[in-house]
Amino acid sequence: MTEARGDIQTLIDLMARLPGLGPRSARRAVLHLIKKRGPLMAPLAAAMADVASNARECLTCGNVGTTDLCAICASPKRATGEICVVEDVADLWAMERAGVFRGRYHVLGGTLSALDAVGPEDLRIPRLLDRLKDEAVIEVILALGATVEGQTTAHYIADRIEGRGVAVTSLAQGVPVGGELDYLDDGTITAALKARKAF
Amino acid sequence: MTEARGDIQTLIDLMARLPGLGPRSARRAVLHLIKKRGPLMAPLAAAMADVASNARECLTCGNVGTTDLCAICASPKRATGEICVVEDVADLWAMERAGVFRGRYHVLGGTLSALDAVGPEDLRIPRLLDRLKDEAVIEVILALGATVEGQTTAHYIADRIEGRGVAVTSLAQGVPVGGELDYLDDGTITAALKARKAF
Repeated sequence: MTEARGDIQTLIDLMARLPGLGPRSARRAVLHLIKKRGPLMAPLAAAMADVASNARECLTCGNVGTTDLCAICASPKRATGEICVVEDVADLWAMERAGVFRGRYHVLGGTLSALDAVGPEDLRIPRLLDRLKDEAVIEVILALGATVEGQTTAHYIADRIEGRGVAVTSLAQGVPVGGELDYLDDGTITAALKARKAF
Repeated sequence: MTEARGDIQTLIDLMARLPGLGPRSARRAVLHLIKKRGPLMAPLAAAMADVASNARECLTCGNVGTTDLCAICASPKRATGEICVVEDVADLWAMERAGVFRGRYHVLGGTLSALDAVGPEDLRIPRLLDRLKDEAVIEVILALGATVEGQTTAHYIADRIEGRGVAVTSLAQGVPVGGELDYLDDGTITAALKARKAF
């Protein structure tokens, strides 16, 4: 760009590095922010500075929060003896939105991958095994993606837990609620048929 | 959301108010920012706070910048006697990216609209007429959208300038560079044919 900007161009360049925003949508977002600099831009800048200085990963489960122990790990209500293992924080948030799981989480931070040289120690798996003793866990629910990497990781974790007297389960696979058969892939239909149950 | 967040949820809610971001992409952006809180989130928060407190509209042309007179209006190199009239700052930026216009701009801030009760005094049109005298303008280039509102506004401005000894021109209409006829609408083809020139 030419002499037209400066600070504003810096802001656009930084915004364009967010996932889902390119240069064009970053410009649009910045113009919108400038128009609403009182009601939106100033509070957004303050909230962002706040989170930038306070956000951290929970030392126990890897969830993000503003304290060393996240709100879920700190809540005695959630000490149900169940740990739900997820790949990342977005998955944890998705589970929380469903609002049906009342135990605690363990965020791996990815999946095992020989290609990317991601091993168990990169994924908080040792910390998970420690928690099994420390928190009197009775069930580990593997809520990992139905991908090759997700399932490889699930099998590895199940193997490591075996023989410790802790139940290991995984989310059911099948037809999504509201889903139409016509739009489903063969793998999902196969899994749903195999896991069919009495009506 | 449940007890999982707080400050982070506030940030997500504010981000979701940006154009082009919904709740889902706002969550994704915030998780990305938290992962890169050192290299990206802190500088972004600072840049945003900077612009929020310094951004203002140029008193002459309506461009956004961090000074009362924008960089283009302040530059003596751009005193060519040409003023390019655009609807909004995004259009000014698009012209500047092309890098071919070396004069100054006038940002209307919208188009005339009886429906939305937008009149000439809402659009910096009086300020444009003042500039014609103050800046020894020889040509006004109307770079307004090829929409009904854009063209209505262009006609209104041309009428107001008539008789002041200032040339009024508008951007050519025709086939976009790299465009294929098959994908063009009838109106563009008609305009391009009418304005055909010797090869």
